[in-house]
Parts: sequence; C-alpha cells; structure tokens
Amino acid sequence: MLPFAQPDFDRAQRKGVPEVILADRKSPDETVAIARAFLERTGRAILSRVGPELEARLRREFEGQAEIEWIAPARAAVLRRPGTRPAPTGGRVGIITAGTSDIPVAEEAALVCREMGCQVWTAYDVGVAGIHRLVEPLRIMLEEARVDVLVVAAGMDGALPSVVAGLADVPVIGLPTSVGYGLGGGGVAALYSMLQTCAPGLAVVNIDNGVGAGAVAALIANRTAMARGASPDHK
Amino acid sequence: MLPFAQPDFDRAQRKGVPEVILADRKSPDETVAIARAFLERTGRAILSRVGPELEARLRREFEGQAEIEWIAPARAAVLRRPGTRPAPTGGRVGIITAGTSDIPVAEEAALVCREMGCQVWTAYDVGVAGIHRLVEPLRIMLEEARVDVLVVAAGMDGALPSVVAGLADVPVIGLPTSVGYGLGGGGVAALYSMLQTCAPGLAVVNIDNGVGAGAVAALIANRTAMARGASPDHK
Amino acid sequence: MLPFAQPDFDRAQRKGVPEVILADRKSPDETVAIARAFLERTGRAILSRVGPELEARLRREFEGQAEIEWIAPARAAVLRRPGTRPAPTGGRVGIITAGTSDIPVAEEAALVCREMGCQVWTAYDVGVAGIHRLVEPLRIMLEEARVDVLVVAAGMDGALPSVVAGLADVPVIGLPTSVGYGLGGGGVAALYSMLQTCAPGLAVVNIDNGVGAGAVAALIANRTAMARGASPDHK
Amino acid sequence: MLPFAQPDFDRAQRKGVPEVILADRKSPDETVAIARAFLERTGRAILSRVGPELEARLRREFEGQAEIEWIAPARAAVLRRPGTRPAPTGGRVGIITAGTSDIPVAEEAALVCREMGCQVWTAYDVGVAGIHRLVEPLRIMLEEARVDVLVVAAGMDGALPSVVAGLADVPVIGLPTSVGYGLGGGGVAALYSMLQTCAPGLAVVNIDNGVGAGAVAALIANRTAMARGASPDHK
Amino acid sequence: MLPFAQPDFDRAQRKGVPEVILADRKSPDETVAIARAFLERTGRAILSRVGPELEARLRREFEGQAEIEWIAPARAAVLRRPGTRPAPTGGRVGIITAGTSDIPVAEEAALVCREMGCQVWTAYDVGVAGIHRLVEPLRIMLEEARVDVLVVAAGMDGALPSVVAGLADVPVIGLPTSVGYGLGGGGVAALYSMLQTCAPGLAVVNIDNGVGAGAVAALIANRTAMARGASPDHK
Amino acid sequence: MLPFAQPDFDRAQRKGVPEVILADRKSPDETVAIARAFLERTGRAILSRVGPELEARLRREFEGQAEIEWIAPARAAVLRRPGTRPAPTGGRVGIITAGTSDIPVAEEAALVCREMGCQVWTAYDVGVAGIHRLVEPLRIMLEEARVDVLVVAAGMDGALPSVVAGLADVPVIGLPTSVGYGLGGGGVAALYSMLQTCAPGLAVVNIDNGVGAGAVAALIANRTAMARGASPDHK
Amino acid sequence: MLPFAQPDFDRAQRKGVPEVILADRKSPDETVAIARAFLERTGRAILSRVGPELEARLRREFEGQAEIEWIAPARAAVLRRPGTRPAPTGGRVGIITAGTSDIPVAEEAALVCREMGCQVWTAYDVGVAGIHRLVEPLRIMLEEARVDVLVVAAGMDGALPSVVAGLADVPVIGLPTSVGYGLGGGGVAALYSMLQTCAPGLAVVNIDNGVGAGAVAALIANRTAMARGASPDHK
Amino acid sequence: MLPFAQPDFDRAQRKGVPEVILADRKSPDETVAIARAFLERTGRAILSRVGPELEARLRREFEGQAEIEWIAPARAAVLRRPGTRPAPTGGRVGIITAGTSDIPVAEEAALVCREMGCQVWTAYDVGVAGIHRLVEPLRIMLEEARVDVLVVAAGMDGALPSVVAGLADVPVIGLPTSVGYGLGGGGVAALYSMLQTCAPGLAVVNIDNGVGAGAVAALIANRTAMARGASPDHK
Repeated sequence: MLPFAQPDFDRAQRKGVPEVILADRKSPDETVAIARAFLERTGRAILSRVGPELEARLRREFEGQAEIEWIAPARAAVLRRPGTRPAPTGGRVGIITAGTSDIPVAEEAALVCREMGCQVWTAYDVGVAGIHRLVEPLRIMLEEARVDVLVVAAGMDGALPSVVAGLADVPVIGLPTSVGYGLGGGGVAALYSMLQTCAPGLAVVNIDNGVGAGAVAALIANRTAMARGASPDHK
Repeated sequence: MLPFAQPDFDRAQRKGVPEVILADRKSPDETVAIARAFLERTGRAILSRVGPELEARLRREFEGQAEIEWIAPARAAVLRRPGTRPAPTGGRVGIITAGTSDIPVAEEAALVCREMGCQVWTAYDVGVAGIHRLVEPLRIMLEEARVDVLVVAAGMDGALPSVVAGLADVPVIGLPTSVGYGLGGGGVAALYSMLQTCAPGLAVVNIDNGVGAGAVAALIANRTAMARGASPDHK
Repeated sequence: MLPFAQPDFDRAQRKGVPEVILADRKSPDETVAIARAFLERTGRAILSRVGPELEARLRREFEGQAEIEWIAPARAAVLRRPGTRPAPTGGRVGIITAGTSDIPVAEEAALVCREMGCQVWTAYDVGVAGIHRLVEPLRIMLEEARVDVLVVAAGMDGALPSVVAGLADVPVIGLPTSVGYGLGGGGVAALYSMLQTCAPGLAVVNIDNGVGAGAVAALIANRTAMARGASPDHK
Repeated sequence: MLPFAQPDFDRAQRKGVPEVILADRKSPDETVAIARAFLERTGRAILSRVGPELEARLRREFEGQAEIEWIAPARAAVLRRPGTRPAPTGGRVGIITAGTSDIPVAEEAALVCREMGCQVWTAYDVGVAGIHRLVEPLRIMLEEARVDVLVVAAGMDGALPSVVAGLADVPVIGLPTSVGYGLGGGGVAALYSMLQTCAPGLAVVNIDNGVGAGAVAALIANRTAMARGASPDHK
Repeated sequence: MLPFAQPDFDRAQRKGVPEVILADRKSPDETVAIARAFLERTGRAILSRVGPELEARLRREFEGQAEIEWIAPARAAVLRRPGTRPAPTGGRVGIITAGTSDIPVAEEAALVCREMGCQVWTAYDVGVAGIHRLVEPLRIMLEEARVDVLVVAAGMDGALPSVVAGLADVPVIGLPTSVGYGLGGGGVAALYSMLQTCAPGLAVVNIDNGVGAGAVAALIANRTAMARGASPDHK
Repeated sequence: MLPFAQPDFDRAQRKGVPEVILADRKSPDETVAIARAFLERTGRAILSRVGPELEARLRREFEGQAEIEWIAPARAAVLRRPGTRPAPTGGRVGIITAGTSDIPVAEEAALVCREMGCQVWTAYDVGVAGIHRLVEPLRIMLEEARVDVLVVAAGMDGALPSVVAGLADVPVIGLPTSVGYGLGGGGVAALYSMLQTCAPGLAVVNIDNGVGAGAVAALIANRTAMARGASPDHK
Repeated sequence: MLPFAQPDFDRAQRKGVPEVILADRKSPDETVAIARAFLERTGRAILSRVGPELEARLRREFEGQAEIEWIAPARAAVLRRPGTRPAPTGGRVGIITAGTSDIPVAEEAALVCREMGCQVWTAYDVGVAGIHRLVEPLRIMLEEARVDVLVVAAGMDGALPSVVAGLADVPVIGLPTSVGYGLGGGGVAALYSMLQTCAPGLAVVNIDNGVGAGAVAALIANRTAMARGASPDHK
Repeated sequence: MLPFAQPDFDRAQRKGVPEVILADRKSPDETVAIARAFLERTGRAILSRVGPELEARLRREFEGQAEIEWIAPARAAVLRRPGTRPAPTGGRVGIITAGTSDIPVAEEAALVCREMGCQVWTAYDVGVAGIHRLVEPLRIMLEEARVDVLVVAAGMDGALPSVVAGLADVPVIGLPTSVGYGLGGGGVAALYSMLQTCAPGLAVVNIDNGVGAGAVAALIANRTAMARGASPDHK
C-alpha cells in the first residue's frame, strides 16, 4: 500500500505488541503516511520522538479524523479512531527512574504499557545517591499496587536497577539511559553495570530503548494478568 | 558463621531465587565450606562451574550427608538434604539454543529454572543458518507446552533471539554466549545484536550468564503460574 | 589537469568499476570541477551524497552540456554526454533491505550496479522482525530473475544477510547501515553480526558503503554474465 | 540422529557449500561422531583445526572405512567414502598471502575451494613491505590462470588486499588474519584497513575466517564456471 | 648499587609512601636483590603478589637477618630489620568490599595503610545485592571508629562505592576489582560505574590497584591525624 | 514540592557537600524552579554550565530576592540569601592546570571548594611540555600555603598529575579534561594515563568532573582543618 | 604578562620548534592577545585552524604592525615583524598525501617545516588505489630533491605510508588523517594500520596532527642539514 | 629458495635496515632455515624473541659456521660470518627507559641500532615518579654524547617521552611498552599518552615494537652521520 515501506500491521495481533513509529528517523511526509496507514488498518497509530513541528502537522492532518493524545514528557502522540481505547488487561507495571533526566525514556515505556492495556505506577528521581528516597515508593508498588514487573531506568552509574532487583521479588527490566559524560558516558556505564549485576532477576534492554522495555514489561504483566483474570479471586 | 563470607541465606525466601555458588572463582576449601553452610541453613546448595576434581571432592565430603545431583552438561551440582526436592510451581519455561556450543550455558539456565520449581522444555542447535530447523520445536513450545517465557541462547551473530521474538507472543530472554572469534567475538556481536533487535519483547542478560537468564525466566514463569494456580482451570 | 586532484580517469577501463565522486567531502567548486573533468575525459560523471543546493548548481552548470539523471532515493546524480548510456552486460543483481532506513544506501549500490551495466531487482523493508515478508521476494529473485549475486542491506541487529545467506545459493554481499542506537549503534552491531555469521557465502563491506557493495556485486555479476554471454543459450 | 547436535547435512546440496567441522570447539568424541554422521550421510567429512592427537584418533577410527586426506598447512583433514572426489566445476580461484604467518588461514580457504570443485592457484609471502614481489604472481593469476576471483589474506596493516584490488579486475575477498601485536593487533588493524579500502571491488570476511572466504570465493567462481561451461568456447 | 634498577629509596621520606615491590613482574633473583637493597637502606621491604615459591625463597634468604611478616590474604610479605615496626600515626582507615573475591585487593590496600602507620577497620562481603548487610558495619566505622577515609572495593557492577559515598561524610576511594565477565568484565563496568557516580566525595584508582588505593587513603588519614595529633583533645 | 524532581536538600548537611545544579541538562524553567527551591530551603543555589541567556534569566528572576555571584571562567553562578556567605572551614586546596583549556573545569572545582568553606590557591597553564614552569607555583602551594590536598587538571597526555604526585607529599586528585583529539582524544588518554600512574597518592574522577574533584578535595581539606582547628596552633 | 596563559616563548630557541597557536580552541580575544604576545616577544606568531572571521579580525588588528601571510589550504596564518623571514637551514622535507582530503593536514605540516627553515617538496593525491601515480613523484623526492625525511599523510586504510616506507631509504613520518567512515573511521583504521606496518623506518603521530608531524620532520631534516652544512661539499 | 617464505634479502641494501627474524612466530625448524638463508646470502642473521631452547638449537646448528652473539636482555641473537662486524656509521642514538620492565624492548631497539652501525648510549629506570633521576643522564646524552636522536621507552602512564621531548632538542621516538594493568593496560595508556603529547618533536611506534623504534632511530642517526662524516670537522 505504501510505496516505500511494508509496515507490520498485524504485529499487535500476532505478538500482542503494537508497532511504535519512531518519527525522528523519518521525514514528516513519511511519518504522516505511515501513521495514516496504521490508523486506517488498526484504528491506532503510536508515534514517538515527535518534535513540536510534527505535532502541529499531525494536528492539522488528522483533525476531525482521529483523536489525538499528546504525551508531553515522552514526546509521543497516539492517534485513535474516535471513541476507541486500549482494552484494560489487568496487567500491572511499576516504572522507576534514578534521576529526572531519565523521565522521557521512562515515559516512552509507560506509554507502551498503557497502550498494551496495563495499569502503570511511576516513581521518579529516587536514585542511589540518596537511597532513602527509594524505600517508600518501592514498598507501595510491591505491597499495595502489587505490580507484576518493574522497569527501572537509570543513566550515569546505572546502580539503581541492581539495588531494586536485590530488594524486589518480581522480574526487573533495566532500562539504561544516555545520561552521563566522560568515560562510560552516553549510557554505556549504566548498561555495563546492569549487565554485571549481582542481583538476580534483572534483564536489560539497550540504552534509551523505552519502547522495548515497555513492550517486554507489558508482555510479562499481561501474561500474568491473563492467568489471574481466569481465577475467581484475582489477587 | 563463615570467617570470609556473608552468604545471603535468605535470598531464596526474600527473592524467590536461590543463590548459585560459582565454584570456579573460589578455592575448593572455600567452595566446600560455603556449600556446607547453605546445605545446613537452607537444605540445598547449588554449585556451577564444577570441574571433575571438585566433583570428586564434593562426593567425598558430602557422602551420606546429602543427595548429590550432577548435571553434566551444565558442569553443575546440587546438594540436597536427603528426600527433599524443589516444590513444583507450575511455571513453564522453554529454552532454545542456536548451536551445540551454547548448550552448557543453556543448561545452567535450565538448572536454575528447575530448582525454582519450573518445568523446562529444550530445543538445541536450531540456529538461523538453517532456520527451517526452528519451526517445529518453537510450535511445540508455544502451542503444546504453552510456555510462559522463552530463553534463547546464541553466540556468533546472535540472530536467533530476534527471529524467535519476531514469531513468539511470550517474553523472550536473550542469552548471548561467548562463542565467536575475530571482531565481535567472545559473545560481543551476539550481545550487541540482541540489544539492537527490531523484534519487540526481547530483554537480555550478559554473555554466558545462564544463571541470570534462568532466574529472570523462572521469576516470570512462577508469577504467571501463581496467578494461574489460583484459578479453577489452571491451564 | 586539475590543480588539487589527480582523478583516476582510467579506472573504469582498468578495473571495470567507474569512480564515484562523494560530493559531501568536497566544496561545490571542487565537485563541479572534478565532475566536469570526468565528463570530458570519460563521457560520464557519477556523484553521490548530493544535497539540494548542489543539485541546483549542477543543473545550472551542466545544462545543455550533459544529460543529468537524478536518483532521488540515493541522493545521487549522473551526468552523461548526451545520447550515451551504460552498455548492458547481462549481469543480474538482487538488492534487499531489512528496513526503510536502509534504502538510501541500498540505492547507492543499485546506482553503481546499473552504471556498470547490470540489471537490478530490489525488495525493501523485509527484515527479520517479520521474516514472512522475505520469502516471496527472495523466491522471485532466485528462481525467476535468477540473479547472480545478492546485496543485503541491514542496520540494527544486522540479522537479515545471515538469514538470506542461509537460504540462497548465490554469493551474498552484506551491507551494514548506520541505523541503530545505544550500544552497538551506528551500524556497529550490524557489521559485527555479519562478520560473525554462521551462514556460508557472505562477505561484507563497511557501514554505509553502498558504492563499494554495488561495485563488488556488479564485478561478480558481470564476470558471470560475460561467461554466460559467450554461450549459445545465455540463460 | 546425534543426541547433541542437528547437523545441516543438506547444506552442500541446498547452498553448494559443504559444512566444515571446526574440531577445536568440540571434544574428540563429539568430533568423531559428527564426522561419522557426515561421512555416512554425504560421503564426506571436512574437519579443520585438527591437532596431532585428533589426527591420530581419526586415523584409528576411520581406517578402512574412509580415505583420509591430511592437509598439513591448514591443520585440516578430509574423510571420504573410498573412491570419491569432488567433481571439478571449472571454477578458478587465486589465493595470495602477505606473509608466511597468513598461510594456515589461506590454506583453509584453499581447502574449501577445492572441496567445492574449484582449481586453486596460490602465491604466498608477497606483502607490501616489498611490493615488487607481488607483480609477477598477480600477472600469472590474472592473465595466465585467468582466475574468477581472488582471496587475499593479510595480517598486520592489512594493506595488501587494497593494493591488489587497485590492480585486479576480478572481485577480491579480503581475509584478515590474527597476525599483529599492540594497538590494532590480533587482526583488528588488518580488518579495519580492508573495510576502509579506497579500492573498488573488495569485500571482506572476519579475522581468520578462511573457511568463509573460501566458501564465498568458490560460490563466485562456480557460478561463473557454470555459465562458462554452458558455452561452446569455455573461456 | 643495583645493576638493573634505580629504586627510589627516599620515597617514603619524601612522599610519606613506601615503595611496594610487585614481585610478579620480576624474576625471583631480581626480587630478592631489590628487597635486600630496600631492607639495608630503609630497614624495610614490602613485597606484594608473592607466590608460595617466592615465599619459601624469601624465608631462606632472609632468615636471621630480618623479621618476615606474611599477609596471606594479600599474598604479600614485609621484611623488617628486627625489632622495628611502623610508628603509629593515629590515621584511621575503613576498608569495605562488596564480595569475597574483592578481599585480596582490599588486603593490599590495608597492608599499605598499616605500613604507613594507620589503624585499619575492615568489613567484607557487604555488597548491594543485599544492601541490608552494609548498614551496621558502616555505622560502626563512621560513628564508633570515626575513620578519616573509606576505601570501598567492588567488582561486577561496582555499585557499592556510590551507595557508600551517598551515605558517608568522609572521602571515599573507589577501588574497582577485576571481578566480572562478559561485556564490562574484568573490572571495566565497576570502574566506569564509579567514574559515573552521582554521589559526591568519591575518587577512584585503577582496577586491582590496592596499593594505590591504600597509599592515597593513608595520605589522607595521616594528614588529618597529624593535625589532630597537634591538638590537646586529639579525638 | 517540585512536581518533576526530588532534590536532595539535606545533602549539604548530611554529606558536607552541597548539590550543584547542572543547568545544561535542564530547561530554563526547570533550572529556575529547582534553583528557587534550593534558595528557599537552604539559603543557596549553585548552578554550573550556565550560558548567557540563562544568566540574564537568572538575573531577572532573582533580582532583589537573592545575591547573585557570577563566576565567569567556570560558567557558574551562586544565588544566596542576602548577607550570607559560606563559613570558612580553614581547609586549604591547591588547584593546578596543565593548559589554558583546562581552566573552566578547574574553576568548577574551585567554586565547589569555596562554597564548602575552603581557601583555594590556583596555578594555571604549567604543563609538562615546559616543566620548569611548575616548580615555583608548586613550592608555594606546598611550603607557603601548606595546602591539604591538590587538584591537578590536565587534558591531552594527562601527564601533569603523575609528575605532581611524584613530587608532593599531600593527596592529589587527578582531574582529566576533554582536551585532545584523534586517538585517546576527548580526555580518554588523560584519564587512562592518570589511572596508570606510577606515582603514589593519586586518585581520579571522571573527565570534566570539576564538581566531583572539588567535592572530594574539599572533604579531605575540611576534615584535616577540623582536626587542625581543634588544636592550639592551628597551622 | 597574559593573565590567563603562560606561553612558552622560549621554545623555539630551546627546542628549535616554534609554538603554533591552535585558534579553534580559543576565543578570538584570547587568540589575538596570545598572537600579539608572541609577535612582540619573538617577532612571529603562527596560527592554525583560522576561520574566515578570525582572518578578518587578524587583518584589522595587526595591519601596519605585522606582515600577515595567509596559507589558505592549511587554514593558517603567520604574523611577522616586517622584513623578517625564517632563516633557511638547508633541511629538505618531502610531503605526500594519499587523497585530496588529506591536503589541509599536510599543509599544516608543510607550514611548520617552512617556518623551521626547511625547503618542502609536495606530491598530493597519489594513494594506493592507483599506486602507479606514486612512482614518479617519489623518485623525484628521493633522487632529485634528495629529501632528508618524508611525511606521508593518509586517511581511510592508511596504507600509503607503509608502501612508501617499503620503498624509501629515509625516515618516514606517518600522518593519519580523520578521513574515513564506519568501522575504523575518523582516522582510526589509518593510525592502526601505520602502527602495524611491516615496513621498517616508519614512526607516526596522532590523527590530524599536522603540526606535530611537521615539527618532528623538520627536527630530523635540520639536524642532518646542520651536519651537512659544516661539510665542504654540502650535498 | 625456501619453500615456504620469500625473505627480503636485499632490504638492508635497499632500505639501510636489516631484516629481524621474530623467532616467536615461527617453528624452530623454520627459524633455523630462514636464519641459514640470511647468513648465506647476507653474511648475517638477526633473531629476536629467542627462548632458551632455540638458543641451544642455534648453537648446535651454527657451531663452527658462524659467530653467535647472544644479547640476553633483549632475548636476541646475531649470527655472523666469522670475522665480520657492522661498519660503524658514526650515528649516535640515546635510549632511555622509564622502568626496569621496559628494558627488554629497549634492548631490542639498541640491538637494531648497533647492527645498523650506530653507537648507543642507554639510561634505564629514570621514570617520572621520581623525575630527578632523569636530569643527569639526559644531560650527558645531549651535551656530552651529542646523540642525534632519542628513543624513550615507557609503559604505564607513558609520560616520560613527553617530558623528554619537552626538554631535548633532538627528535624523540616514543616506544610504548606493554607494561600496565586494568583500564589502559598492556601499553594502551602509554601509547595514547604519547600520541596526545603536547611536546613537539615526538613520533611513536606501536607497543613493544623495539625493532621498529631502533630502525627509525638509526635511519635518522645514520643520515645525520653521513652528512657529518662528509665534513672536515666531523663533530
């Protein structure tokens, strides 16, 4: 249908994970065309790395044809066939960041989780330089929200996911961010550190891959939720 | 209790993941002492990277005091208080390797999953150079065994986890192995390739970290199984 | 003849590969001067990495003196002595990309093949995250077009060339592209992955070296075509 | 058939490239078992990286059951069903090395070419520190033997393949070897240098991948030979 | 005096830091000769990386001429003119390790501190995978022993020094150890992580440089102690 | 209090090190909000990496509410509750640079030391290419100012900290700067060189981490000063 | 004299090498002040990396006070006390480049050689992809100009200096340039290749360090010339 | 003449640099054969990296046929046609090392210089951690021996060549050695540091390349000596 691309429209159905259009690698024209194709075929188009110009363009292009949801901290947008929403799955995901600079990437993960039907709890800027800030939010996520999985985003030394995985009894997805400078900068130290973790139950995705972290976390949560949903006492 | 170490005896209870003693970084005396401590405190000691001399030593040391299970392909041993076994959780894990050289690391993952109570399905040597060998084992795992999570071990180009994650609707843990030579050798190309995957739903652990891959996979499977177990129709 | 350069005007004759002028490393004045020199000496000038300003400049400079062919997706231009065209050799090249971002580099390869007299078949955006999209285009190239060689461009995990080389019975040239982020980004993971391939019959060029991939592919195809051309039944 | 491996017995037929068993990554028992399986299924087993102990073992195991050909400089062996030989294809391959240390890897490439039916010309130790030694052997290969493709092996600075590709009008496969020390040692400088080549018509394989270089060279040569063979004048 | 070396006998006086002879880079004969020279000139020789053979040799060589102190966990030895001991400075150093594998390097640091006259407190195997083990030892060091500086040794993810520096109000010297595997292994992830720390008050030395960490820590502690010693109430 | 951040207001009290707001990683609005929060809670806000626009903005925002001190060479600003100043601790820090390009980073370190109450001596552009320029400033710092610690900033070959640590009897903090080009550029050679130093008593921080170097130096100086301050003869 | 810098005015006399002011790392004001200081103290100021704005500024500042020589291809300028010129030493330097992109760096080297009194011969764009272009210029330099030393600049594969050093009987200084892309790009492959050279008599400087290559070459040439100058037959 | 190698017998004459046979990369049989060929053709064979077994073998093989000179610290041997010696050229080379571990590599350089007819002055173990040890030996080399060139070998931080080049007025060849550990170990920090030097007049060779450093230094010294030799007052 598109002359220059063969989008995988059926992925959401086949894999349970919707395609996310990375707008910063495409021209505005291409982005709009692909978004329109997804909107028509699947009723939804998810776009990340959306700058202000593209945002304005999207509003002009799709006004009256789609509902536009703009997720500012993630620089992301979701176009929807009017009146539709992701069906809640009951999956529960907790997302934590070490610093404020990690928030945009964490919000990308949150967006994907929400579009896959999960409920998301967040706690931001609770990193290891003052580890006392972590205790209460983590307790709430594990004991009150009873999340199925945690995504922990960190740049710099990347120590937070290891600390969390040493305390929590759910799987943890480490999400290194490109925060850092000098040797090991750009997220490399964070990623290395997570790969070298002594804490069990931690797996990682690549630097700044919020979409990937969200997808794997939501797959885990949704599978658990599906099993739980079938039970009389859904815990 | 031990003069030189402070083992985390309570981890299995706190985290749901038992400690694994990496024997190749310790002297035989230290290994035996730590194993004895775990056996006494928790009823079990899991040892990996066990060479033939240490195996003989363990048999002499623990004869009559513990049951010794020797998992040859993983070069691992489990000492148990006689008559005990891990309680089955109902968690279901599939483990796949690209080549035969990936099997020892994959077996480490399988061992951890089994000790965490999961049931494990394996399919080895089904890599991308002849991708037709993958189809049937993957179908069995997904449709018949209905595994909750897949661990996919690969060295060299590390392409198999991406291919599997493009086909499967469960979370996939990529396990790069130190198989490969020249530029990108020792597992680096495999790990990079998994981090760069275009397929959603793939998270990774470090090169040769079979124990870590098994732990995160079993955490995922057991959480799902717990939810499932609470339901009347537990499949 | 030129004060600042000693172009290798005879390369096309000596090597069978024409020189390609990389315009992004030269000033517009230098580019025009070198292009004019090639046009005068060899009847043709091939320019890649041509931006819109240079395109306009070239049109002004060479209007009425040369035919200008503009290959938009490759950001390339060919100036020709009016009425001339590359003589068809009968060489047959197939070019495949994993994603849409790989197309500009793939088109550079296609341009070089065409200027070396080959016929080119292309199939774009058929990568491993949804490997079912690959089957039919590959069948057509191998069985219907009966190409002599394949160029497979991929960024990110760079898995596609390995998958293709595992299926095809012709030589495959892996062309890594600078698509990717984080660890192994900028094409490094793709190149490492191709170097580590388990599939036989795959050789590679450097990241984004579309010109180089095209040249080696066309050399292979033309040599085969030359042998074929001498036979009575040239298919 | 084998409990621990799923060899790709049909590769030779499907791809035109036989499987080579890398003996240094397997136990002697495994190697013998896989070799026997190939011998029975395909009439031939090719083994590389064969040490003296394994050689003796192979002689004992296969005496009277197979012809054993021992290629000393490549540390390789070929077991054959008695009386069989690869059918000559007419493909012609030239193999050149820069130094004497590159010979074992070059001989691996030569072995694969010969087992794929090609005729092989070699010229060793003709590197760039005394480039006058290159001229005559290269002339013979191109003008007298009229090879279809060249494999050029070099370690250290890896300059020879670029020099050859600047002179020859056939495709060149660069084969970096792990010869070199200090920064860029172990073949890294050689590989980088080949990837950065200014000479057209050069593609590369990974460091020490003689088997891979031979396979792609023979695929090229055999395709040309097949076309040539169909013609009345088999030039 | 020595034909092959110009030892810096006056360093202890000029810098306040004694020379440590790294025995693993010298022949036994050289080591003995240099040790003898130091013993004669300064009354003391400190040797690290001493294997069992060298230990025996030292005992034979210096019996009756020097007191030999053997520090097993650091694989180190101190030879002294009989009856001498380092003069206590009042400097107070705390040394912490994340795991048991970090102990040899930490003991090298402790040895240097003691030979520079400091009192040393140690707490080993208190790493972040179970961070609750850290709290009490750290409290004792800071509040009871009132150390002037902390050395924190860690391999793998190297997270412990950052966590400690986030809690302690004294300078912290991060000492990465070559514990770890795969990407970021051999201490690289640990060092990167410490360099990227978000916690203020942390400086680092190179991987496994226990001697260097001890020297800088003791310099800090001794300077503080000197100031303190001059005061009427020296606590 | 702030919706997007959880600043560690108590760090100055808990650690003795004030928080420094890195303005180049935040939007101007965020920077102003965080600065205001610190000013209100702690009476001071320290901002580094402040460009001219932000400077003007800060002047407008805080005019009449705070005293603004602008440290041009460090591109830094300090906002203070009117009439307040850091209490002098008596700590004494010497700061040396190899070249003029290292001055901005060195001034960041100086700023942090001064805000922590230390007195700072500086000597800039005294690098090893003309090592005679170092002698006199170093003598003054050690013998006249009697500094407690030295910070030595260097880019390029990073040799100066080693030379200084070979001469001085106080702890030295090596501060590599991102000055340099080609291989080992961006501060990498400088950092490597400091990590490999043969001189005892040198610890390092990451490239361009002037804030970190200042914090650890001031912690050392202040601890010494505190001990000294308690003595009758406080020099 | 300058508040922010301590230039090494005596270097030219002490070392025989004048200081070169790298203008791209300084503000225009700093550059002008340092240039003025050198002009006043030594009668000359050499500036490299001079952009067009700085050129105009220099002309305004120094009009009537100094002669300005502008070396366009090196983006460099020399200010001189009117009527002065470097005294010819009789040193003879040959400078060769592989491509046209290497010329600016080569011209920096030429400038330094000329300012150190040498006579310079150049041959540009004679790289290994068409090695026949090298023969004649090299013969002229060695046999007719009888140069004392050669500087050979190359990017990409960096093969030319090795080829030259294999042919010439004078010392060769390899000058890698930041020309190249993909793996080994930015001059890394060129530098590695030169470090790995098999040809004797080749030493290297860092990537793009034209000033350094010129300085070492002129030191060599001038020392030879001094010896030659003292002889009756100075050839 | 040799079946497996094409030695460059004429190099000494063509280049003025004799071939050095690196014995550690060849079998004893090959080494002996090549040495014999050189001895017969050129009257001399130079062998480096000679272990004790090979030494004994060489003595047996060449007894009565050649004079054998054994240079123990360089692990090198020279075989000569009886009664021959290198003709003195009058070239003067100074060789300095930072530590004792650098001596074997420095002695390789010295050997090559002596075999090329130069006179060699050495000063070992004078590194920057106690830079006062450098002053007198350097003064002797520059003012008394009046060397034409300096080779400075250093591992670890590699700072010594920069310090020397900042003081000396002759060309300096930096010779990094593989001494060092942790990050930047194996000579990498030393090489980076030399490449980044601020001191003019320094060029480098690869890590441990004593032969290469000696060759380029002797080429420089001999060219100067030749010019000097032609003058009436040859000093």
